[in-house]
Amino acid sequence: MRTLIKGGTLVDESGEYQQDMLIELGKIARRHPDIAVSDDMQVIDARGLLVMPGGVDVHTHFNIDVGIAKSCDDFFAGTRAAACGGTTTIVDHMGFGPTGCTLHHQLEKYHQDARSAVIDYSFHGVIQHVNEEIIEEIPAMVHDEGISSFKFYLTYSHFLHDAEILQVLQKLGDTGALATVHPENDAAIRWRLSECKKHHRLAPIWHAHSRPPACEAEAIARTINLARLAGDAPLYIVHLSNGLGLEYTRLARNAGQPVWVETCPQYLLLDMNCYLRPDGLKFMLSPPLRPRAELDKLWVGIADGGIDTVATDHCNFPFSQRQQMASEDFTRCPNGLPGVENRLALLFSEAVMTGRISRSRFVALTSSNPARLFGLWPEKGSLLPGSDADLVLFDAHKNQTIHHHQLHDNGDYSPWEGFRCQGWPTMTLSRGEIVCRQGQFTGHAGHGQFIARKPFINRTLP
Amino acid sequence: MRTLIKGGTLVDESGEYQQDMLIELGKIARRHPDIAVSDDMQVIDARGLLVMPGGVDVHTHFNIDVGIAKSCDDFFAGTRAAACGGTTTIVDHMGFGPTGCTLHHQLEKYHQDARSAVIDYSFHGVIQHVNEEIIEEIPAMVHDEGISSFKFYLTYSHFLHDAEILQVLQKLGDTGALATVHPENDAAIRWRLSECKKHHRLAPIWHAHSRPPACEAEAIARTINLARLAGDAPLYIVHLSNGLGLEYTRLARNAGQPVWVETCPQYLLLDMNCYLRPDGLKFMLSPPLRPRAELDKLWVGIADGGIDTVATDHCNFPFSQRQQMASEDFTRCPNGLPGVENRLALLFSEAVMTGRISRSRFVALTSSNPARLFGLWPEKGSLLPGSDADLVLFDAHKNQTIHHHQLHDNGDYSPWEGFRCQGWPTMTLSRGEIVCRQGQFTGHAGHGQFIARKPFINRTLP
Amino acid sequence: MRTLIKGGTLVDESGEYQQDMLIELGKIARRHPDIAVSDDMQVIDARGLLVMPGGVDVHTHFNIDVGIAKSCDDFFAGTRAAACGGTTTIVDHMGFGPTGCTLHHQLEKYHQDARSAVIDYSFHGVIQHVNEEIIEEIPAMVHDEGISSFKFYLTYSHFLHDAEILQVLQKLGDTGALATVHPENDAAIRWRLSECKKHHRLAPIWHAHSRPPACEAEAIARTINLARLAGDAPLYIVHLSNGLGLEYTRLARNAGQPVWVETCPQYLLLDMNCYLRPDGLKFMLSPPLRPRAELDKLWVGIADGGIDTVATDHCNFPFSQRQQMASEDFTRCPNGLPGVENRLALLFSEAVMTGRISRSRFVALTSSNPARLFGLWPEKGSLLPGSDADLVLFDAHKNQTIHHHQLHDNGDYSPWEGFRCQGWPTMTLSRGEIVCRQGQFTGHAGHGQFIARKPFINRTLP
Amino acid sequence: MRTLIKGGTLVDESGEYQQDMLIELGKIARRHPDIAVSDDMQVIDARGLLVMPGGVDVHTHFNIDVGIAKSCDDFFAGTRAAACGGTTTIVDHMGFGPTGCTLHHQLEKYHQDARSAVIDYSFHGVIQHVNEEIIEEIPAMVHDEGISSFKFYLTYSHFLHDAEILQVLQKLGDTGALATVHPENDAAIRWRLSECKKHHRLAPIWHAHSRPPACEAEAIARTINLARLAGDAPLYIVHLSNGLGLEYTRLARNAGQPVWVETCPQYLLLDMNCYLRPDGLKFMLSPPLRPRAELDKLWVGIADGGIDTVATDHCNFPFSQRQQMASEDFTRCPNGLPGVENRLALLFSEAVMTGRISRSRFVALTSSNPARLFGLWPEKGSLLPGSDADLVLFDAHKNQTIHHHQLHDNGDYSPWEGFRCQGWPTMTLSRGEIVCRQGQFTGHAGHGQFIARKPFINRTLP
Repeated sequence: MRTLIKGGTLVDESGEYQQDMLIELGKIARRHPDIAVSDDMQVIDARGLLVMPGGVDVHTHFNIDVGIAKSCDDFFAGTRAAACGGTTTIVDHMGFGPTGCTLHHQLEKYHQDARSAVIDYSFHGVIQHVNEEIIEEIPAMVHDEGISSFKFYLTYSHFLHDAEILQVLQKLGDTGALATVHPENDAAIRWRLSECKKHHRLAPIWHAHSRPPACEAEAIARTINLARLAGDAPLYIVHLSNGLGLEYTRLARNAGQPVWVETCPQYLLLDMNCYLRPDGLKFMLSPPLRPRAELDKLWVGIADGGIDTVATDHCNFPFSQRQQMASEDFTRCPNGLPGVENRLALLFSEAVMTGRISRSRFVALTSSNPARLFGLWPEKGSLLPGSDADLVLFDAHKNQTIHHHQLHDNGDYSPWEGFRCQGWPTMTLSRGEIVCRQGQFTGHAGHGQFIARKPFINRTLP
Repeated sequence: MRTLIKGGTLVDESGEYQQDMLIELGKIARRHPDIAVSDDMQVIDARGLLVMPGGVDVHTHFNIDVGIAKSCDDFFAGTRAAACGGTTTIVDHMGFGPTGCTLHHQLEKYHQDARSAVIDYSFHGVIQHVNEEIIEEIPAMVHDEGISSFKFYLTYSHFLHDAEILQVLQKLGDTGALATVHPENDAAIRWRLSECKKHHRLAPIWHAHSRPPACEAEAIARTINLARLAGDAPLYIVHLSNGLGLEYTRLARNAGQPVWVETCPQYLLLDMNCYLRPDGLKFMLSPPLRPRAELDKLWVGIADGGIDTVATDHCNFPFSQRQQMASEDFTRCPNGLPGVENRLALLFSEAVMTGRISRSRFVALTSSNPARLFGLWPEKGSLLPGSDADLVLFDAHKNQTIHHHQLHDNGDYSPWEGFRCQGWPTMTLSRGEIVCRQGQFTGHAGHGQFIARKPFINRTLP
Repeated sequence: MRTLIKGGTLVDESGEYQQDMLIELGKIARRHPDIAVSDDMQVIDARGLLVMPGGVDVHTHFNIDVGIAKSCDDFFAGTRAAACGGTTTIVDHMGFGPTGCTLHHQLEKYHQDARSAVIDYSFHGVIQHVNEEIIEEIPAMVHDEGISSFKFYLTYSHFLHDAEILQVLQKLGDTGALATVHPENDAAIRWRLSECKKHHRLAPIWHAHSRPPACEAEAIARTINLARLAGDAPLYIVHLSNGLGLEYTRLARNAGQPVWVETCPQYLLLDMNCYLRPDGLKFMLSPPLRPRAELDKLWVGIADGGIDTVATDHCNFPFSQRQQMASEDFTRCPNGLPGVENRLALLFSEAVMTGRISRSRFVALTSSNPARLFGLWPEKGSLLPGSDADLVLFDAHKNQTIHHHQLHDNGDYSPWEGFRCQGWPTMTLSRGEIVCRQGQFTGHAGHGQFIARKPFINRTLP
Repeated sequence: MRTLIKGGTLVDESGEYQQDMLIELGKIARRHPDIAVSDDMQVIDARGLLVMPGGVDVHTHFNIDVGIAKSCDDFFAGTRAAACGGTTTIVDHMGFGPTGCTLHHQLEKYHQDARSAVIDYSFHGVIQHVNEEIIEEIPAMVHDEGISSFKFYLTYSHFLHDAEILQVLQKLGDTGALATVHPENDAAIRWRLSECKKHHRLAPIWHAHSRPPACEAEAIARTINLARLAGDAPLYIVHLSNGLGLEYTRLARNAGQPVWVETCPQYLLLDMNCYLRPDGLKFMLSPPLRPRAELDKLWVGIADGGIDTVATDHCNFPFSQRQQMASEDFTRCPNGLPGVENRLALLFSEAVMTGRISRSRFVALTSSNPARLFGLWPEKGSLLPGSDADLVLFDAHKNQTIHHHQLHDNGDYSPWEGFRCQGWPTMTLSRGEIVCRQGQFTGHAGHGQFIARKPFINRTLP
């Protein structure tokens, strides 16, 4: 059985096309302004709709154990929500494993966890400590296992020190892997947190004050310069939330350094006033939500190319759990926001419909750029014949308000409750199979396949 | 009778103070944390309120005749609306007079027109043609008449050419006057308009396309460089609406050139999608509303100091008139928006309550900066003892939705209809007299006095 | 007869290679680390030498009549000097023709003039007035005649006004031609010159004061914005001499606009103090030499990529003639500097040997970038097999002081007299023929061929 | 006895004045265009000379013991050299003391050492370790001892960690002291040095490669952000040598953060090619000399205000000693350059005479800015009546070549040997006494007095 998508407007990173699209064996077989219908075809009516590469969300945390809590979305629930929001590939950041564990240890665990995924997936490795064994393990992870990106942290329990970072960056760059970094200065946060505790400043708003933008900006500049010292090792900044850090990356890029930047819808649309709401714990994540002035600067980066990708950092802890653990003390709250299902609708509504960016730039930010950077392109993030038929059909004229009861994760709230979106995904296909139709999940556990990603080789975004 | 404002939080450009304020003979007499009440005092309870310098709106067009129409707000209605919005001083941009008329000719006309004003006022001169007589007239206007700023245009019927601009800028700088400029490239606009007409592109949205940001950016760079050539003549850019122009002014300021920048609430909060509304004619003004990405850049300037003042460019043509004149052809629509009454509430709500700027920066943008630049300080824009008791009491916790039927202008609509504001002015005093209380106008025509402004001498904003 | 270049270090825009190079029929036939010598080969010993694409100088004025004088280098002398300096292609900017003449009129004249050239050549068209005929003539010039770039001026007798510029830019962009602009504000220069004359400020130093950097910066911003308004018409700024203009081009490029920038050795190495020398008239050109601080900013652009090409603007008027015409009045001096012969040595010495740029970046600036932008690549500016064997052999260790008596132009002085260069060209080949060897010209008139250049199509520099 | 300086051109940070100057009791008593000579006056003929505030060099290391060596200039020789170069005040950075020593311990030592000084002096404290005692010692140092600035290091044996830096910055800011920082990333340098040693890369050029610009840029961004986190503690970057670090400080200053920047003549005028010279060890210092492209960027900062002060970092180790210790291994070479005597002549020649900056800006960079920042103004760095008569008479037309045998330090070489200066100091007065005349030292040991400096309170440079 072949599938014909008829009458839609194809949108990819390069432009828009009034073309029909034929899908065979899960791949895009042909594109033409008018493909004739035949009996062996399932026909999807896409008149009035945009047909875009399915979303690629390269920052999720499914099934993660953060020590004080375990997130409520496993790979089934997480990818189900993703699929219903128009995302067809996720790359999950592995969590920390037991102290001293190997890189392969975590990979095996995650391969187990992810068997229930309903869309295709891969993983980022995590460097939680550094020694000769870890360094020597990297090439096998990249070339044998298809794990061509790794994250390290500058804060939290397993953060790396400068000497370790240099060693890791050099090895990753030499091996063909992309380094990703969670940039927040650990010493500053500890100092600020101890001040908060000393003065009993334990309401959610103090979360924002305990790790203000300068914590993040410092860590960004540090990592950029260490990457330069490590021979211009390629570097990807996750979840950027402040303007000064963005300026630092601009300076590096102007000097020819390979640095890319990700942000998330919450850093573009929600500000730290959320922490003053009675349900402020719903918004606890790190980096925290920022003053509105930072949001303006990030929007400039979305429009002018300073920011390359929009991911979600989906990490779901129910509000009930947050209240139970942290109603008296924000420092006890597990950090992270759900959001994998609403990324496309939010960005389309606030960036495209407001006139900030074109629809092609939308595809670049949400799909083709992350696919290119993380070794998934052109199988993912592309409408070229031969690419996987991972698609989202999007209705730019459908207005919908977000309500958690209509979402598909395992949690009990959405930080976007009541947010009105202009534009909404109406159908999602994963390798040619319809996995969501009009908000109804139609896929199944195990459809998703692990993707061994290509090594990183001097990628330039178009 | 003296007036005591008791229990409020004083806010000026420098900081905040828990102080009572005593007013005598229309001036601020004393400030102290606790001033005792006595029988000869009228006492105003300001508990829970902010007490700020009244707004200074240095860009209005009252009673203006733009050739194809005359605006509906005379100085009485215009200043009444201003007063009810917390503004206590306006500086009106004189309109063009008869071809070849002298500078004094227009001044006399405006002195007549403004007698009905309910708050204090002054005028900016306008240079509508250049010859030896006009150039020689400038010093008397500045030093004898107190008109220490002048505007010229780079488009419209009476725009100046480069050679004229150089002559004017040099004379203004030498004389101690601040040049203000309406920066839009005339040739480009004419070219674009002729294209619109040729292709029957006459709906309101084409207004935005007929004079896009590059028209304005070009004119800003040109005027900046001509001012540099004229011996660093001080220059004030009115109604900035695009980000590239802002970058040009940043470069000039970094090089030590005296350039200042004004924007208006409409350029911060409304985008060109408004022109797609059925009532798009309500938003016709020049420069036009811009794509959302420009708004983000202006907000960055509001927060980081790149923009110095927020004025309104109030110029009121009723919607009925717009429809009558231009329903078939946007080029026939008189240009300008009403807005003098909502400037403070809009900016407070969107800039202060969102966390973009501090309350002191709000005072600087709306009151003390324009007062300093235009020779009104410290009589206006200041809470120092000795300054005029021009004050606004502001309730940061009062939420109010803007409805035109509650406003005080002579028009028939507000572009802000339905806009919800967090924070609202609750009382306005002009030289110690209460001219508005809880939205009720309590002043009277003729209370306003003309202010002969001081010459411009190397002003630096704090 | 084939030619083998043996033992050299090949340097192109991409890197360096220890390879021999075989030349057949005037083209690069083969590159290999070790090519065996055979009897039918002329062998050139390049041990210790760099073998680079011959220079491409896209800004010369040979045989030009500027009204008050005619330059002393015709195409024979001019290209002879170029060849002896390692340049193998020039693109000459046609001068103004009779008032009202067609584009083809000047082309015919230049085809005649250039028959004596000793290296390959092409021409830039010039737009000296605008009407329907001129506009309609452009496509034939581009597509039939191979003239795919045109210059217009913002000052001098035939400068264009904004409305004309818009029309020209749009047509050039649509046709596939690159617009080049001489950016100086005419009104400002006239105003300053009249001041100079009024106050008898007629010494050479006043040349610099009569057209300071802001004149140029203004014109650059203006043209950039007009190009944006004309649908992002591709634009090339000639002879940039100031830092603010460079910042303007950076802003445009960051916003995705196709703008490129050329500077010349004189703007990098000579400052306006030259005008205080007794022989200050030797340095009269427009834009004039600048304060040293501007030079620093241009060097930053050379190093960081802000500047794309280095040309010469060679325009040779003998010092004796300058003295005769202008010893009492700088305004009577014909404008222009000789320099086509020393471009490579000067830039190599001051940019490469000082560590500012790599040798590949040197090739990009002097050869491959201009070849790419002006439709000459890969025949010119390249070491790829199949490219023309236009080559310069360069000895990085040869120190030589410039003396005019050793140069090959028809003039009587060099502005670089006494300048010590580290590195010097030792041999030049044009389509495989040795046209200069150790400073001795070995070519012949008429060897040079006209190059019909390719249209401009979305070029991106590597 | 009074002193009259007659006929000179006074130059201070604000402008130039044709005035005579009368000195009484070591202070500037009067300035007037024509002061009559009387019998009790010593008259200095300053016709044709500039009379400027004596230099203030806020970065010297006299008599310092760096562990592997002790510098050869004690306070007598060091200040003698300073005086002969036109510098009348130095602020010496105290060296490290015994492990764990108090702040006062080093102060006492330095008071002893400095008794022989021939001009006035003060000291910067040094924070070589952090604990409660050190933190509590700071206020007494500032308010009782007049030590209102302190340095800490990010590399070398006693560098501080982030948590310590935060604590120190906050305390210094709260106390009214200016933090100064030596910014180089320790981990990166150690890593690079170990690579050098492993591969036997021990020639002087490897010094530059072992600590490239990114080491410094990282440390600058880090300290800036930690200062922001410590409540915008005022921060002074010493010896800036790279462009990216300068951009980081610009970003901070644009955001309103109190950060100032110092550079030194060697970073403006000497590049890393010096390390390739046979006497490359003469140029060993940290940060090292940089590629030429960095110099261009620093010059931009000198011209546009991005850099505030020029000091010397004078630290003199004889070439003979360097050779003895490090001829086989650059890592054994004591770090530092002599230069206190040539700062004014070098900067005047290369910055003023080339047209990069005005003479007033020269005074600001070398005298009044450092005096203001370090609590010495207006006693030092000023020509106001009442200021100390610390003066330099400067002959802008005297060309002199630097030869070490004419200098007044105790070393055996100058890095500036053979450098030709346009402009030279011809007389120096310290509190009215002539301490150098035409290159001859005329002062005496012990004339110099310790200056208890004022606390740091929100200084803004004019």
